[in-house]
This record gives sequence, C-alpha cells and structure tokens, in this order.
Amino acid sequence: MTITKVIQLLEKFRAGRVSRDQVLRVFQAAPIADLGFAQVDTHRALRQGFPEVIFGGGKTPEQVVKIAAKILASESRVLITRVTDAHARALRKKFKPAIHHQLARCVTIEKKTLPKRPGTIGIICAGTSDLPVAEEAAVTAEIMGNRVERIYDVGVAGLHRLLAKSENLQRANVLIVVAGMEGALPSVVAGLVSRPVIAVPTSIGYGASFGGIAALLGMLNSCGSGVTVVNIDNGFGAGYAASQINVLAEK
Amino acid sequence: MTITKVIQLLEKFRAGRVSRDQVLRVFQAAPIADLGFAQVDTHRALRQGFPEVIFGGGKTPEQVVKIAAKILASESRVLITRVTDAHARALRKKFKPAIHHQLARCVTIEKKTLPKRPGTIGIICAGTSDLPVAEEAAVTAEIMGNRVERIYDVGVAGLHRLLAKSENLQRANVLIVVAGMEGALPSVVAGLVSRPVIAVPTSIGYGASFGGIAALLGMLNSCGSGVTVVNIDNGFGAGYAASQINVLAEK
Amino acid sequence: MTITKVIQLLEKFRAGRVSRDQVLRVFQAAPIADLGFAQVDTHRALRQGFPEVIFGGGKTPEQVVKIAAKILASESRVLITRVTDAHARALRKKFKPAIHHQLARCVTIEKKTLPKRPGTIGIICAGTSDLPVAEEAAVTAEIMGNRVERIYDVGVAGLHRLLAKSENLQRANVLIVVAGMEGALPSVVAGLVSRPVIAVPTSIGYGASFGGIAALLGMLNSCGSGVTVVNIDNGFGAGYAASQINVLAEK
Amino acid sequence: MTITKVIQLLEKFRAGRVSRDQVLRVFQAAPIADLGFAQVDTHRALRQGFPEVIFGGGKTPEQVVKIAAKILASESRVLITRVTDAHARALRKKFKPAIHHQLARCVTIEKKTLPKRPGTIGIICAGTSDLPVAEEAAVTAEIMGNRVERIYDVGVAGLHRLLAKSENLQRANVLIVVAGMEGALPSVVAGLVSRPVIAVPTSIGYGASFGGIAALLGMLNSCGSGVTVVNIDNGFGAGYAASQINVLAEK
Amino acid sequence: MTITKVIQLLEKFRAGRVSRDQVLRVFQAAPIADLGFAQVDTHRALRQGFPEVIFGGGKTPEQVVKIAAKILASESRVLITRVTDAHARALRKKFKPAIHHQLARCVTIEKKTLPKRPGTIGIICAGTSDLPVAEEAAVTAEIMGNRVERIYDVGVAGLHRLLAKSENLQRANVLIVVAGMEGALPSVVAGLVSRPVIAVPTSIGYGASFGGIAALLGMLNSCGSGVTVVNIDNGFGAGYAASQINVLAEK
Amino acid sequence: MTITKVIQLLEKFRAGRVSRDQVLRVFQAAPIADLGFAQVDTHRALRQGFPEVIFGGGKTPEQVVKIAAKILASESRVLITRVTDAHARALRKKFKPAIHHQLARCVTIEKKTLPKRPGTIGIICAGTSDLPVAEEAAVTAEIMGNRVERIYDVGVAGLHRLLAKSENLQRANVLIVVAGMEGALPSVVAGLVSRPVIAVPTSIGYGASFGGIAALLGMLNSCGSGVTVVNIDNGFGAGYAASQINVLAEK
Amino acid sequence: MTITKVIQLLEKFRAGRVSRDQVLRVFQAAPIADLGFAQVDTHRALRQGFPEVIFGGGKTPEQVVKIAAKILASESRVLITRVTDAHARALRKKFKPAIHHQLARCVTIEKKTLPKRPGTIGIICAGTSDLPVAEEAAVTAEIMGNRVERIYDVGVAGLHRLLAKSENLQRANVLIVVAGMEGALPSVVAGLVSRPVIAVPTSIGYGASFGGIAALLGMLNSCGSGVTVVNIDNGFGAGYAASQINVLAEK
Amino acid sequence: MTITKVIQLLEKFRAGRVSRDQVLRVFQAAPIADLGFAQVDTHRALRQGFPEVIFGGGKTPEQVVKIAAKILASESRVLITRVTDAHARALRKKFKPAIHHQLARCVTIEKKTLPKRPGTIGIICAGTSDLPVAEEAAVTAEIMGNRVERIYDVGVAGLHRLLAKSENLQRANVLIVVAGMEGALPSVVAGLVSRPVIAVPTSIGYGASFGGIAALLGMLNSCGSGVTVVNIDNGFGAGYAASQINVLAEK
Repeated sequence: MTITKVIQLLEKFRAGRVSRDQVLRVFQAAPIADLGFAQVDTHRALRQGFPEVIFGGGKTPEQVVKIAAKILASESRVLITRVTDAHARALRKKFKPAIHHQLARCVTIEKKTLPKRPGTIGIICAGTSDLPVAEEAAVTAEIMGNRVERIYDVGVAGLHRLLAKSENLQRANVLIVVAGMEGALPSVVAGLVSRPVIAVPTSIGYGASFGGIAALLGMLNSCGSGVTVVNIDNGFGAGYAASQINVLAEK
Repeated sequence: MTITKVIQLLEKFRAGRVSRDQVLRVFQAAPIADLGFAQVDTHRALRQGFPEVIFGGGKTPEQVVKIAAKILASESRVLITRVTDAHARALRKKFKPAIHHQLARCVTIEKKTLPKRPGTIGIICAGTSDLPVAEEAAVTAEIMGNRVERIYDVGVAGLHRLLAKSENLQRANVLIVVAGMEGALPSVVAGLVSRPVIAVPTSIGYGASFGGIAALLGMLNSCGSGVTVVNIDNGFGAGYAASQINVLAEK
Repeated sequence: MTITKVIQLLEKFRAGRVSRDQVLRVFQAAPIADLGFAQVDTHRALRQGFPEVIFGGGKTPEQVVKIAAKILASESRVLITRVTDAHARALRKKFKPAIHHQLARCVTIEKKTLPKRPGTIGIICAGTSDLPVAEEAAVTAEIMGNRVERIYDVGVAGLHRLLAKSENLQRANVLIVVAGMEGALPSVVAGLVSRPVIAVPTSIGYGASFGGIAALLGMLNSCGSGVTVVNIDNGFGAGYAASQINVLAEK
Repeated sequence: MTITKVIQLLEKFRAGRVSRDQVLRVFQAAPIADLGFAQVDTHRALRQGFPEVIFGGGKTPEQVVKIAAKILASESRVLITRVTDAHARALRKKFKPAIHHQLARCVTIEKKTLPKRPGTIGIICAGTSDLPVAEEAAVTAEIMGNRVERIYDVGVAGLHRLLAKSENLQRANVLIVVAGMEGALPSVVAGLVSRPVIAVPTSIGYGASFGGIAALLGMLNSCGSGVTVVNIDNGFGAGYAASQINVLAEK
Repeated sequence: MTITKVIQLLEKFRAGRVSRDQVLRVFQAAPIADLGFAQVDTHRALRQGFPEVIFGGGKTPEQVVKIAAKILASESRVLITRVTDAHARALRKKFKPAIHHQLARCVTIEKKTLPKRPGTIGIICAGTSDLPVAEEAAVTAEIMGNRVERIYDVGVAGLHRLLAKSENLQRANVLIVVAGMEGALPSVVAGLVSRPVIAVPTSIGYGASFGGIAALLGMLNSCGSGVTVVNIDNGFGAGYAASQINVLAEK
Repeated sequence: MTITKVIQLLEKFRAGRVSRDQVLRVFQAAPIADLGFAQVDTHRALRQGFPEVIFGGGKTPEQVVKIAAKILASESRVLITRVTDAHARALRKKFKPAIHHQLARCVTIEKKTLPKRPGTIGIICAGTSDLPVAEEAAVTAEIMGNRVERIYDVGVAGLHRLLAKSENLQRANVLIVVAGMEGALPSVVAGLVSRPVIAVPTSIGYGASFGGIAALLGMLNSCGSGVTVVNIDNGFGAGYAASQINVLAEK
Repeated sequence: MTITKVIQLLEKFRAGRVSRDQVLRVFQAAPIADLGFAQVDTHRALRQGFPEVIFGGGKTPEQVVKIAAKILASESRVLITRVTDAHARALRKKFKPAIHHQLARCVTIEKKTLPKRPGTIGIICAGTSDLPVAEEAAVTAEIMGNRVERIYDVGVAGLHRLLAKSENLQRANVLIVVAGMEGALPSVVAGLVSRPVIAVPTSIGYGASFGGIAALLGMLNSCGSGVTVVNIDNGFGAGYAASQINVLAEK
Repeated sequence: MTITKVIQLLEKFRAGRVSRDQVLRVFQAAPIADLGFAQVDTHRALRQGFPEVIFGGGKTPEQVVKIAAKILASESRVLITRVTDAHARALRKKFKPAIHHQLARCVTIEKKTLPKRPGTIGIICAGTSDLPVAEEAAVTAEIMGNRVERIYDVGVAGLHRLLAKSENLQRANVLIVVAGMEGALPSVVAGLVSRPVIAVPTSIGYGASFGGIAALLGMLNSCGSGVTVVNIDNGFGAGYAASQINVLAEK
C-alpha cells in the first residue's frame, strides 16, 4: 500500500465514506513489508555512497552484466568482486566507466566519483601473495569514499621494515591487516597503534596452514587488544567495515 | 640510555672530550628498546583513559591483588576480567573503590571515574545464557569512558522483539552483538543498521555447537556486510574494539 | 519359494506324499528374503507415486540410461539427480517424456503425470547461489505429487523481503529452507510459522564456510524449535522428507 | 501504540483536532514491533497446546522456578528440560501438579491435561544408554498432545529384535530414532517404513565417537530416504518436530 | 658380512692367524642388518605366495614397469594397485601374463597361478559406487591364493536383500564389508555372523560424508563385536589382512 | 509362534480342521522375528564359549549386578568391562566366582573355566600407560578360551627390546598391538611377522595427541600390510576379534 | 649371551671342542637384542650426562619413587616431569638431593652436579601463564649440563620489551620460544637472530585457541626460517632438543 | 638517514651551525628502520653464505626471474623452491649458472660455490614418494654450505634396511627424517642416535592421512626425545634449520 493510497483512505474516512473499522483494519494489517521497505530506504539514505556489491564468483559474465545494469538503473556506483578476465571484458564492453582492478580481482563502475572523506584507512600486508586480498579491501574502501594508505611488504619476520612505517601506521583512523601463514601481523600492528585493527586471514600457505585456518585462529587469539577478524580472504568485508568506522570519524 | 645521558654525550662531543666516532657508535647502537619505550609512551598518552587489564583466569587471588597494586601505582584505573568470588573478595578487601560486577565476572577499580564521551555503544544479546559475555563487554566499554545501551532478550527466532528495538539499534555508534548456538543475530542486526557490528560468539549450546565453534563460523560467514568477529566468549575484546571505534566518533 | 510352490507342498502333505517334518523344515527355513520381498512390496504399495531415484553423480550417461530403462520397465516414473548436460542429452534421446530441469540438475521421466495432492510445500532460499539445491528439492517434491510454492530471494540480512512473504510462509504444510554461509534463515523462518521446517545447508561460501559445514552447524544449533536438518546440498532428501510429511496432511 | 490509542487518534483526526500529516506519520512509523506482536499472537493461537519450554541446563533452581511461575501466569502448561534433582525438588515444592520424569531429565507442569490426538509417534532406540534422550523426546511429544509408542532395545547388530517390531514401526505417523555410536539405526528403520523419520544422535560412546559426532555424521549421510536430523542429544527438538508433523496428520 | 666371510674368519682364527679379540670384535659388531636380512628372508619364506605390491598412484607408467620388472626377476607374482589406463597399457605391453582388472583399478602379473586354499573370503558391499574398492580387495585376496565370494548390491536400507544372502555370509571364513556414506553395513553383517569382519570405509558420498570420514567413524564405533577397520578406500589392506586370516584357517 | 504350535497347526490341517488358506496365511505371516531368533540361536550355538559382555561405564553397581544375574541364568560366563572399584565390590559380593582384574578394569564370572584352544594371541605394548587397554584385551581373549602371551614394555624408540622378542612375536597366531602417542608400534611389528595384526590406539598422551586421534590416524595409515584397527582404548574389541581369528586357526 | 660366554665358545672352538658349524649357528643366531643392548650402551655412553626421565603424569607417588630408585641404582641423575605436590613430597622424603622445581612442575635428583658446558640456551616467553612450560624446558636443559638464560615477559604486542633484549637473544647458541594464544613470538624472534629456534606452543588461551592448536598451527606456519616445533606444552622435549644442539656447539 | 648524513649533522653541531636540540631531535627520532636495517645487516653478515629464498609456488616465471635478478644484484646465491618446468626454463635462460634440481622442484643460482663445512647432515626417508621433499631439504642444506648424506629407502616396516644404515645415521651432526603416512620413522631414528632429529611430515598417503595431518600428529607425539617438527612438505624449512644447527658444530 503506497502512501498515496493511505492518504486517499484517510480522506475518505474523514469524509465519512469509509468506517473507522475499515481504516483500523488497514492500519493493523499494514503490510510489514511496505514498512520494511520504508525503513530500509531510510537507512539506505543514511549510508549515502555505499555501493551495491555483486559477488562475481560462480556467476557467468552475462549474469554479472545483467545484475550490474539493473543496479545502475537506480544507483550511481557498483562494485563487482572476484571477477575473472572474462567478467571484466564483458563489463568494460557494456559499461564505459568500468575499471578493472586486476590485482584486486574487482571491477568498479561509478557514474561520478565520490569525494573522499578526510581520514585515511591503512592497509598493511606482508607480501606479494597477500596482495589480491589487500587490494580487494583497498578498492572497496576507495569506492566507498575513503582515502587508503597502502603499507605493503612488511612482515613479522623482518620487524625493521614494519617499524620504519610506524608513523604511517599511526596516521590512519582504522587499519586493515592482511596476513596468511601464522597470521601474526595484526597482533604486532595492534601493539603499535591505538586505532581499531581489522584482521583478514588469507588462504596463503601450504600444509598445516589448512587454507587459512592457521591464520584465522592466530588472529582470533591475538594478544593485541582491539583486533577484530573477518572471514578468510574477505578483503571486501574488511574494506566495508573499515569504511563504516571511518565514516564515524568524519562526523 | 636516557635523554639526559645523550645530552651529556653531545656536550662532551662539542667540548672535544669524546670523538665523533664515539658519538656515532652510540647513535648507531642507540638501544632500540629505549626508542621503543619512548614510542610506546607517546602512543600510550594518546589512549588516555584506557585501562590496564588483568586476565584473572588461572591466577591466584594473591597474584591478582599484587598485579593490580603494581598497576594502580602509576595508573588511575584497572579492569580485572574472569574473576571468581575469591578474586573479588581479595580485591575488595585491598582496594576500597573496587566494584565487583558479578554477572560480568569482572572487578573494576577506578581512582576517579572517567567522564563519558557522547556517543553510545549498543550491546545486543538473545538471552540469559549470553549475559556474562555481554556484561563483560559492557563493563569494559564503560570503564573506557563509553555510554552503553543494553538491548538484551532479543533473538532471531522471535523477530518482533528485535524489530521493536529498531530505533535503539540505530542510535548507537557501534554495536556489539553477542550470540551462542547458531550465531545468527549479528547478520540480522547488520541488516537493520549502517554502523559497525562486532560479533561475539559464546560457548553456549550443546552437542554440535562445539563450545562456540558453530556460532563463530556462523559469524565469520555472516551475509551481513560490515560484521567483524572476536574470539569465543571474548566480551572484553569486543568492548575494547568498540571503544576504539567510539573514540573516533568523538573527534 | 513362491506361494504356488508352498500350496503344492501343503497339498502333497495333506495327500500324505510328504512328511510333516519336510513341511516343517521348509517352514523353518522359509527364506527370509522372500518374506522380506513380500514385506517390501507391501509397503512399496503404500507409497504409491514415490519415484525411483538415480543419483547421476559419478555415473556415465550409458549407465544412467540403462538403469532408467530397467526401472521404467516396472515403474511409471523415475527421477535422476545430479545430472550433467551429457546425462540429460542421453536420457532425452532415449526417453521421449524426459524433462531436463537444468537449474535443478535433474531429469524426470513420467509415463503419466501424478495428480497433485491438496497442501503445498514451501521452499525458501536467499539467492541465486542456493537455487540449484532449492530446485532439486522442488523437482523432487513435484514428481512425488506435491504442489510447491517457491519463495526465493529472501535472506536474513534484509528481513523486510522475508516478512513481506509472511502469508505465503504460513500457507504451507511444511517448509524447506535452503541456505549457505551462516545458515541462519531456518531459525528466522521457524520463528514465523508453526509448521515443520526442514533445513538444507548448501556448500555456498568460501573460507571458513568449509564447504557448508558452517551452515550445517548453524542449522543443527538452530534456536528455532522444530527445525530438522539434512546433509549439505541434499535438496533431494529434503524434498523427499517434505513429501512424506505432506502425505500425512492429505489423509 | 495500542489499538485504543490508534482509535483515539483517528477520532481526533475525524474531529479535525489532528492533521492528516500527523496521522500519516504515526501510520508510517507504526511500530513494527506492535504489528509483530500481533502477528505472533495470531500464530501462537494456531499452535494451541504447544508448551513453553525452559532449558534447565546452567540455570539455578531459583531461576527455573521464577521463569516457570511467569509462564504459568498466562499459559496452561510448561516443560522444563535438562533438570537436576535439585531443579525437580524446587519445582515440585512450588507447583503442585509438577511431575518429575527422572529418566527424561524433565519436569512437566500441566494445569489440565491435553486430550491426545489420534495418530501415534514411534520412538525407537537401541538400549539403556540412549534412554534419557529417547525419553526427553517422548515427554515432549506427550505434553504436546501426542500418543507415543516406545520401541526400545532394538539395535542394528541384532536385527531380529527390530524386525519383530515391524508392525509397530509401520503403525506410527512419524518415527523418532535415537542412536549413539555409529548411528546406523535410522537408516535401517527408514528402509522398513514409508513415514518421516527424525534421527537423534546421542553422545553415547567413547574414543572416536567424539561425543556424538560419529553418530551425527552417520545420520546426515543416511542412505535411507526421508531421514532428517536434529542436534546431538536433542530429544526435545525431535519430539517438538514430530509433534508438528503429527498435527498435520490430524487435520 | 656374508656367511662365507664369517667362515673364513673363523678358520683364520682356528689357524691362529687372527686373534680372539679380532673375532670378538667382528662378533660384537655383527652387522645387525645382515642378521636382519636373514630374519626377513626366513619369514618371507613363511609367507609363500604373498605378492609384492606396487602402489601405482602418483607413479609414471615407466616407473611402474621398471619396478615390476625388478620384482619379477626374483618373485613369481606382482600386484599393481591404483593403476590408470596408461599404467595398464604399459604393463600389458611389457609383460605377457599381465591382466588389467579395470573395475578394481589393478594389474596382476603371475608367472603361474597359485592354487587356491580351501576356505572362502566373503566380500560384501552395497552398490555400484563401492565396487572399485570391493574389487581391489577381491583381486588382492585372489592373487594371494584365496577363493572369494562376492556379495554385492546389499545395503542397510533394504535389509531383505542382505538377509537373503544369510547363508552365503555364514559360509565365509572371514568377511570384508565395504561401505560409504554412513558405513552401517559392517555392524549389521557382524550381527549375522560369528567370523572376523574387516570394514573398509569408502570415500563415496558428498557434503558431510567428508570424503569417507563419516563412514570411517561409523565403523570404528560399530556396535557389532569383532569388527576391525582399515583406511578409507584401502581395499588392498583389507584383502591382505583377510588373506592372512584365511591362511590361519588352512593350517 | 513356536515350533510346537506350527506342528499343531499342520496336524489340524492334515485332519481337515483348518483350511489350506489358514495355513498359508500363517506361513506368509511367519513372524520374521521368530525366524530371526532361530537364526540367532543357531549361530550363537556356533560361537560356543563366547561370553556375554556388559559395558560397565555409566551404569550403577546395582544395574550391573542385575544384568549380570540375568545373563548368568542362561549363560556360563560373563565379562564386565570398564568397572570401577564399586562395581567390582558389588559383583564379588553377589557372585562367588567373580574375579576383579584391577589393571584391566574388568570383572569376569565363569561358572566353569573354558579349556584353552592351542594357538596363542600375542599382546604387545610399550609401557605402563597402555597396560589397562592391553589387559582389557588380554582378559577378553582369555575368557573366550585363548592362551595369551603378554609382550609388554617394548617401544619403537628402543628397538632392541622389541627385536629381542622376535621369536615370541612370530609364535602367535594373531597379534594385538596397543599404543598411544604416535601409534607407530603396529607398523614395526607388522614388518616383523606374517600374522594378522590388530592395532589398538590408546588415549595416552597430551597436547596434539588429541585423546588418541594421533595414534588412531597413525595406525589407519600404517605402512605395514595387514594391520587392521579398532576404536581408541577398545581393548575388548581387539580381544574379541583376535579370538574370532584364533578360532579359525583351531579348525 | 654375554661376552664372557662368547669368549668361552671361541676358546672351545679353537680347542676343537665345538665344531665350526656350532660357532656359526651361534653367530647367525646372535640374539639381536644383545647386540642391540650393546649398541644402545655404546651410544648411551656418547650422550654422557643425559638424564633418565620419568613422566610423572598419571603415576602414583609410589610408582614414581620406585622407578626413580631403580634408575638411580645405575645412573647419576634423574628428571621427573609433571609432578604434583604429592609426588614431590614422596621423592624428597626418599631421596636427599631431590629438588622440587615448583613452577616447572619437576623434581630433579643429581648425585653430583654436572659441570655446565660453555654456550647458553635462551628461553623466551611472553608471560606468567607460559612460565610452567618455559621452566620445564629450563630445568631439563640445566640438568643436561647447559647454562640457561631466561628472557621472560616479552610478547609480540609490546615489541619494545623484546627489542630491548636483542643482545641477549643473539648471545644464545639456540633459543626456545614458548607461546600460547596466536603463537607469533617464535616468528618475530627468528627474524632477530640467526640461531636455531625451537617453538613450544602452550595450551594457554580460551575459545578458538582450542587448547593450544591455534598456537601450534601458527608455529608450524611460521614465516621465520629455521623454526622447528614440538608438541603443545612439551617443555621437556624442547629442553632436550636444545641441549642436543648445544652439545654440538661444544665440540 | 644514512651514516654520512649523521656525520654531517654532528660536524655541523660541533661547528655550532645546528643547535643541540636539533641533534637531539634527530637522535630521538632516529628512524628505527635505519637502525633496524643496520641490525639486520649485522646479523646478515653473521650468516654468511645463507641464500635468499624465493617461494616459486603461485608466482609467474616472469615474477620469479625478476625477483631473482634483484637479489643477485647484491647477493652471490639464490634458491628458488617449488618451481615448475616453466619456472626452471625461464631461470636457466636468464641466468647461466642456474641449476634445475628436478626431483627437488628447486633451482639454485650460485655465482661461486660455497666451500662445504666439515660435519654432515643426514637426510632419511622411506621411499620414492617422499623424495621430492627430502631433496628440497638436501638442496637447501647444500646451497647453505653443508655436506649431505642421503639415506633413502628405509622404512619402519622393514627395520633391517634401516638398521643396516646404523653407522651412517650416527655419523651425522643432525638428521632430517622425512615421512608420510603414519610418520613413525623419526621416532625410530631418534631411538638410534643422540643427535638432533628434525622431522618433516609429507602429504603422501590417502584417506585418513588427511594430506599429511596423520604424519604431522605422529611426529608431534613422537616418543623419541629430541624430535622437532616442521610444516607438512616443508623440506626447505628442515634444510634451513639443520644448516643453522650444523653451523654451530663448526664453531
């Protein structure tokens, strides 16, 4: 039931053309869904600039293009994660402003770029193997209107490189720390800063790394206070959560 | 090597009483630790109001009292988590302002109470079994200077109670969602708000809940964007991270 | 030993041509299997309309066609699950009325369609990734003579869409809820209806979803009363069980 | 907002004392929760006779008595599961009609007994160790208004005892099969009947039974069609689901 | 040190050409390995007719042919398990009497066939999916000189077929029961016979079968006395152990 | 229906007092259970001397005494495993010939001792921690009429002690090898003998032994041919299976 | 057969009183065990100063005293690990020089103290919870004749404390790093030194630390080269291995 | 800040051209990283001859060549592990002295060969399947300047072959024992020598070997004192650690 219809009903009621009980019944039966949608719209408005996201994994290029077109009909930006080259080609053919972030395995389409909010999100990782996940986080954070500072190639087995970036670490409002293998980097970073640290385990490693479980457990058991964790390889989730936090700092 | 000593050295060097090489050697050998301490002090200053924390689990009442005394010599507040009644009795006997938060299994000792910062942290859980963990998060957040809104007794199997708290949920800067069993509550909450959600799995349940693993996995795989997770039963960690986030909103 | 043979034996006994001991020995040795078969036939008769099922996975198209032919010699319908395109082509070439349900990865062959029984089975899932499993359940339920109402594209992170379908949910005699990732949907659905809910975890997800274990554990630990669970991706099993329940409502 | 208040509002609107916009705003803001409660009440009405349930595990006798009293203020029956002797004593002291089902580890309190619906629920298990779980299922089913037929002491390693109960098995509308160790009993039972089978793994066993995981996995992988599964030791859940199914047969 | 050398040494000692201490030193240093070989030879002689075995998995056809040739230089038979078609082709090209057991994924090469010992080994499985493992057991048992009775297509969900084979089951000296999914067949068989039962879990199944773990756990927790278990898919191991047992019956 | 009753029926039929159809109906309805019992009796007869077994774990002394009394009414021996001192006291008080095997945690009650069959069962373990399981196997084997040779205190880290027992190992018809920690002993023993080896993992160890899982996996993956495995700590199962094998050697 | 007996045999042979074949037979049959013992003695001699070790866990005080007495009859030192206070009391009552290392849960008994070899073993851990395991390693290393440098109270979340000990770390020949929770300390230490690092996971932690598995996995996946790992809580094993390494440096 | 710059600063200070405070500030801010690098250089110097290592897995041939070129600009040797044939071809085309160790899946590039240090590292494994891991360890140890003695084809199920190598085992300063399946070889080897034993589990096996977990657990629970363990298939790590130990023996 649209608002227009409710107005008509109320006018009819005032005009004595429908009974109080009829209005009451509509009121009571007020389809939760409509209210629900309203509610969602309301808070969607609050999160201005947040993109719609398509998880490309396991979808055909055609499906992805179709869903993206549907979103772009009403939204000004869309993020497609876990894309293959075929996905990227199809998207770039269809949508002019599509950008393929190859390392991040993402495509972004923005009708117009969002102005960046002041604070920065620091993204830290140890090496080349973790880059795809770190970049997925970075691209996500950027399309949501954040400045990102990348601090790559710092690992726990060579502390001097990490310590050399001390100042950069402390500049960020929130930090995303991406690590595979034993997943110790977030603990060390959390000991150097007083900002929220979001840890992302990666599936990098072999043998007893069990596809990222070792890193995940390491992060959940971090002795560094204030570390929270997302799913293995979930760069998107980390970027999204970091953006939500950075928005708070903007207020 | 203290700064005083470095000054003396430089003066001797200027006075020609020590050679350039001697200064250089000290410079190169500059004990990283001293610098390290400096650095730590600097950023400790930044996190004014953050308490020192003692994990009571596995420590004797005597040990806990001793460590608390040592901290209170230089700090104005201390939080002791996972206390038994014996711990609490010993602490309250020794420290006048000690408060025993029985449900939270915590003792707090504050020389003077911290003024609360403006925004609130929402803490949500489904029921009585999850209360100890939710309260550990609440006590932690409060001693760190935050206002806490408790939204207890809302679960996914009775949506109406949760939906009735819609407004309360949306008021908070950051939300801590505590849940055992299937750990579905954070996903539902994340769908209703646009603020950071920190999920805390609890060890509540039996059989295939495996001491909280089911809830932990549920939360890591949450379909709600922006959900981050801490260790099973880690109310303290969630409260600490939420406070770090709420501090940002204060800026 | 057939009944005819037993009759002959008894007549010979009455005629004094075989001893009592000979009859007794046959009686005692009464091949359990024959009785067993009888028994099976009896209760197979009770479950009129239940199809024979071939699990296509790991079988060659030739094997599947051969087994299907054998079943159709005595039965009026057969369901082949987990078929590849090659399976489907081979079956459609051989059997005229074969229908390939591509999304469900099933082929059905019915000599004549079964009339549908009155009540409906509701099948609920969150999105495109879970559709193959949901459709396997639907096709199974349909070939067993049930009406199916599909309620797709409803998830726990967007409650309004689910609540909008409230009435549809409550119309069904039994509900099949298919979900991957954290597997929270069955708990929420079970809180909205008072009918049996059969939960099907899917292998959808990545990282700590562990091929559906997270969803499976979530469902086994559901806080919603009356939820029962089948194996990961086992759409067939859910459809079969739902049909058995719906049959009861028909009595 | 209560219905009385909505009526007052509409009257004021008709009387011109509040504007259309004011009514509209209330309408839009119609607290979902109120509607939610309404909805819940509606479908609670549908499930007449279903008891409120208290999980006694981890609660003090005082807590359990208090919650039971609160429920009995508005409901005519309550089921308390996983009770200790102390729970039972406290409940029986306070509530006259309280019955302690010792083997089932349950207490039931009924103001007046529910008439039983016609069909029966069969409950099958192998032996003495599985009895507490089987009885929890039985007591749950009975307080929900069902007739229960107990078929205990039948196991897969002694088929003759199970086969001797063939007729009893086939009489039931729905069967609950409780088993520990390798959890094979539901598969065998499902091969003998054409009714829904709900399997309950128990934590009985040692070594590689892993507290019921072996039985749980066995049941999830059952080769018997139509078997659904509940959590380890969850006799209550099985009884509840079986009752929901049996209600359908009553229609 | 060969025996010939020891004899020479002793003769030199008797002839006074080496000292007692020199003999003593050799004696003390008596290379354990030589003794070891002797010992091995001795007991190898005892197990006449036992083939050498090559695990084909992960080896190239050339490697397999080369190892087989080396064995056949001194032995009269060889068994190659887990062969691909390429392995089989290479072996049959090189060795005339090579037989490719396609279903069993084995090749056997026997210079002359071993006479079969009197008792039989029963091999039982539920269906087509388990056949490769069952046949690996059968081929292993046969090349080791045993008669094998295959009882395939009997499963726990259709007891009558199994019961019909009662007599066959009881005829065997030892039974190998191969099963995937819930692995319940060995328990049922062990309840019907009084002979040793060797259970072989297979990796057949999907979802929560976890590549055979469900079946393995089921078998380890079997309620049937006298059931022993081998590794998942280890048909060879079961055939080998069964043969060792059948040899005992031959004495 | 007893045989006497069947005879009466047949006589009545011959006498023309019941119709052929009446006999036929009884014949067809021949209660499977009766046949089943017959069958069981038959093969129970075959396994003369096999004891009935009571698993004492989790039963009260009263329950154990009651079950033992019931068995001894018809059987001449009974074995009670996993007994506490309380169990033992109660049994010895009630049954004169009861013997408490303290180390084995067993009680045996034999009306008259079974004569021992010729061959021996070798039981091997590394040390004092594994003795309770090894002794449970030994007591089981002995009450089933077997001679047992205990070869304790031999481990893989001190090969000389094991090799010194070479002859003893080779004397046995079948070997039970009990080991905790890494569970390597069965592999080494299987390399020294050509007889069946039954491996029993024990829950001895700490940390990554995971209550016997490490030993269990080691044994399932044994590189020694012919090794079969029973559940963790299942000394009874190993003794039972070994006895079944040793019986074969007796034929 | 003792050496004396072999000498007698050879003399008889030289004297012509036994044949060559008789000597040969003895030679061939040379009981492997005797040789084995010899071999063991030889290499035991090589490891002068290594103590015999008794694992106290699960043994009674009487058993421990008895075994210690037996060892001290021939050895000059013994180490008893995992002792309770009762063990310690019993040992100190019986053996004068017994020392109870309470924190390490060890007792050592040395007839005379071993002189210490030159190099040192560094033992590093983060805090009070890990001390029992670190001290078990220290006591083991010390009784084996090593100097130990304890570097306690350094953790990855407070790098400055660790870096301040840089020089101490680099002084050691080999380092034992003990850590619970995420087990990241060994990676960081290995990045600061070029000596062998032995990592010991401890069972300290809760929730997803799974009794030390998180730390164990972290250490096995260490990105620091040269890190090797022992079992959870196995301080003894680490001390023993470190001593073996330190002995090499002494050569 | 380079040392040259520090010298210039100090000279300017002495010359009165910069204030003491300016020097002090630089001193305090002394970029830890520079110091860190210094420190690293220092200890890198200590580990003369240690190669830089590139993990080839998951990198393109181009990436590997590029990183190798960068390292060789300043280092005299590089080790690339887990190479494919494509990697090897690209490296050999670019770098003249590149050697492809096919079995070890490694390429080494040495400008000039390092002289070997005196002691040897023994590498032991059971068979052909474990060779790639054993050879990775061997190649690593060799390029780090060690002599390696390979003792392949010895397994626990054929002890005589291992015992025959007794002397070779005892000659080594440190032993690397590589094993899959049940991983028992290190325990047996540790019982025969008094040197450090580094165990490497391999992913060889099937079924319940779980990709090397069975071997890993076996080694962590080894009853042989002094065994330390590295990650599954981590031949490089074992070779690196063994070299660190062998360096100590050289001192």
